[in-house]
Amino acid sequence: MALIALLTDFGTCDEYVGVMKGVIAGIDPGIRVVDVCHQIEPQNIAHGAFILQAAAPYFPEGTVFVTVVDPGVGGRRRILAVDCSGRRFVAPDNGLIEGVFKNSSETSVVSVESRRYFLTPVSRTFHGRDIFAPVAAHLAAGLPLAELGPPVDPADIVTGKMPRYRFSSRDGIEGVVVAADRFGNLMTNIDELAIERLCKGAAGSQVAVVLADTPIGTIVDSYDQAAENAPLAIIGSRGLLEIAVNCGNARRMLQTGKDRRVRVQLL
Amino acid sequence: MALIALLTDFGTCDEYVGVMKGVIAGIDPGIRVVDVCHQIEPQNIAHGAFILQAAAPYFPEGTVFVTVVDPGVGGRRRILAVDCSGRRFVAPDNGLIEGVFKNSSETSVVSVESRRYFLTPVSRTFHGRDIFAPVAAHLAAGLPLAELGPPVDPADIVTGKMPRYRFSSRDGIEGVVVAADRFGNLMTNIDELAIERLCKGAAGSQVAVVLADTPIGTIVDSYDQAAENAPLAIIGSRGLLEIAVNCGNARRMLQTGKDRRVRVQLL
Amino acid sequence: MALIALLTDFGTCDEYVGVMKGVIAGIDPGIRVVDVCHQIEPQNIAHGAFILQAAAPYFPEGTVFVTVVDPGVGGRRRILAVDCSGRRFVAPDNGLIEGVFKNSSETSVVSVESRRYFLTPVSRTFHGRDIFAPVAAHLAAGLPLAELGPPVDPADIVTGKMPRYRFSSRDGIEGVVVAADRFGNLMTNIDELAIERLCKGAAGSQVAVVLADTPIGTIVDSYDQAAENAPLAIIGSRGLLEIAVNCGNARRMLQTGKDRRVRVQLL
Repeated sequence: MALIALLTDFGTCDEYVGVMKGVIAGIDPGIRVVDVCHQIEPQNIAHGAFILQAAAPYFPEGTVFVTVVDPGVGGRRRILAVDCSGRRFVAPDNGLIEGVFKNSSETSVVSVESRRYFLTPVSRTFHGRDIFAPVAAHLAAGLPLAELGPPVDPADIVTGKMPRYRFSSRDGIEGVVVAADRFGNLMTNIDELAIERLCKGAAGSQVAVVLADTPIGTIVDSYDQAAENAPLAIIGSRGLLEIAVNCGNARRMLQTGKDRRVRVQLL
Repeated sequence: MALIALLTDFGTCDEYVGVMKGVIAGIDPGIRVVDVCHQIEPQNIAHGAFILQAAAPYFPEGTVFVTVVDPGVGGRRRILAVDCSGRRFVAPDNGLIEGVFKNSSETSVVSVESRRYFLTPVSRTFHGRDIFAPVAAHLAAGLPLAELGPPVDPADIVTGKMPRYRFSSRDGIEGVVVAADRFGNLMTNIDELAIERLCKGAAGSQVAVVLADTPIGTIVDSYDQAAENAPLAIIGSRGLLEIAVNCGNARRMLQTGKDRRVRVQLL
Repeated sequence: MALIALLTDFGTCDEYVGVMKGVIAGIDPGIRVVDVCHQIEPQNIAHGAFILQAAAPYFPEGTVFVTVVDPGVGGRRRILAVDCSGRRFVAPDNGLIEGVFKNSSETSVVSVESRRYFLTPVSRTFHGRDIFAPVAAHLAAGLPLAELGPPVDPADIVTGKMPRYRFSSRDGIEGVVVAADRFGNLMTNIDELAIERLCKGAAGSQVAVVLADTPIGTIVDSYDQAAENAPLAIIGSRGLLEIAVNCGNARRMLQTGKDRRVRVQLL
């Protein structure tokens, strides 16, 4: 069964996402559509890239991901269609798919240019409806990737929008808060593997986490290892370090959020 | 494959929309349900009518639209079922479907009265669950429209809730802001055709757009034709004039929104 | 057709709900998934229990409900799988399913422990993805409940999180506001049957409703029986007493909300 997964910054206040689903149903009513998330911070490519990286591995092979965080809509940015070991992505060429992209022999990339798969006319402001959705529907319905446009050298696609942490075996890891989730948990860009490397394979209990100038403590294994309403550091479900508050809201309680520095140091 | 599209002002904070889908699945689990939008401003019929008008053409023929913005629920307003050239609508008779309704030989309208297709009992406050959803499910599953109740003269249905712009070939066009979208773009009720008529078929670059007392400039072809953080006027994806800010939020930046006057004048 | 209904406090800002759907599609792409509601107040078990109680009866028999309001995630709380007269629930054992649970000969309860149906590894913070979703998908696809783990005595499951009203045939009923909905309507925990019992079977017009210290009046049959912008009491679509404002927002207008006392007294 063909599956399309939608990830956008369109929100759900408007008809934008619904209309994309209408377009898909008009091309092939048998395609199933799943919303990954539509609340990416408007035009925040890094936020979209982290959420896509967290979500994509949990979808079945063959899924076509339509990812639209696209401040350049209507300008000259390319639209890419990518087949990456069986998972496919239709996305603006702006760094959004960096976290899921692997340049291997099983990867194909094309520039989406064949207007026969677009709606007519193409609007100036809503390529999600007029290009991304119909192209994805045709892909999900079986169209070969190469029909969509000329091949692109994988080395040429835009990267560099996901902030990188700095790693030093002496000074530790320095990263940033990428976003807060609904619960106020602060997602950082520091992954579990970096922490394991700092600890030389051992557990996170050997490190101290500091958010801006606030010491958070070691890394715990469950929320309830911290006192109620106390801040804590934990490896969240994305494999990334998160700052949370047991039974509370870290964003509100620590009065902090996106772009704040986070450091992980050996004790 | 049968398709129902839902447009309501129910929001997604509550179980209302989910319960409607449960009712539909209970009548025919094979019906596919798509959310158009549930964030219509509560009880704002004009907002719902514009969003429905923008969305409906992108859904396949045969779709049953369930549209519930219904301040008169439990009172004496009628519920209509409409077949309009193959697209069907179940809606309160309060002006909500005005933007998609065409009175032609291919249009049928009935008053939904046959209680055998309602849930029992019918609540006082949630006809979306008890009447609209089950009636739409039966329609989508193949029930003829005429089974739902007596025919209604299309000339008798409620209209007049969508604000109209004023057109003068000398003074220009005067309309209003209908709503802001997630990005803060201000959707007006002035359509592209009116602007083309004012320009006698030529491009929007010949006009000046003024929002309340703020001059916005000519009409551009893409967001990036304006400077970053500058306001701009553009024909949005609905074929309507919109006021936006390049890489910004017009609603916040211009401190304005619904019902504000917009004028389009020849230069 | 197999149907899973999701009720969580995950919100829709993040990828959490989308990822659960990806996991389900990976196990059986034929399962249909419906969102009941994801805006349960974070970690508010009582709110979730009332919404589940309101929604579940409107879904077809055989539906598998995945209900995740789970402040104890990663701690020692059990996860239950329940078959209750054909409707099935996968939920933390924290009182969330109290409103839909009936201890009868047709009820089976097991403790979900068989890790072969979990994702590997199980994260510390997102059992919705790693346990609830895959277990529900296997159930919906036909796995017998007993395969998931050892039986649990129905008398042993956690209850007591839904606030109860106090009933006195002399002094009336005293309950609380459980939550406000999108329209600002205040849902109470006082059900229609209690009011009928107070009135000895007769109509609600014989009672006076008081919210904190504000007299609201009798119980009306439709919103428009109150003056515009006047507060009113009505039996809402859940069979519970609600405080609303005709054409307005009770939460905002009465500056009130959750946990406020509500009294119903005979006139």
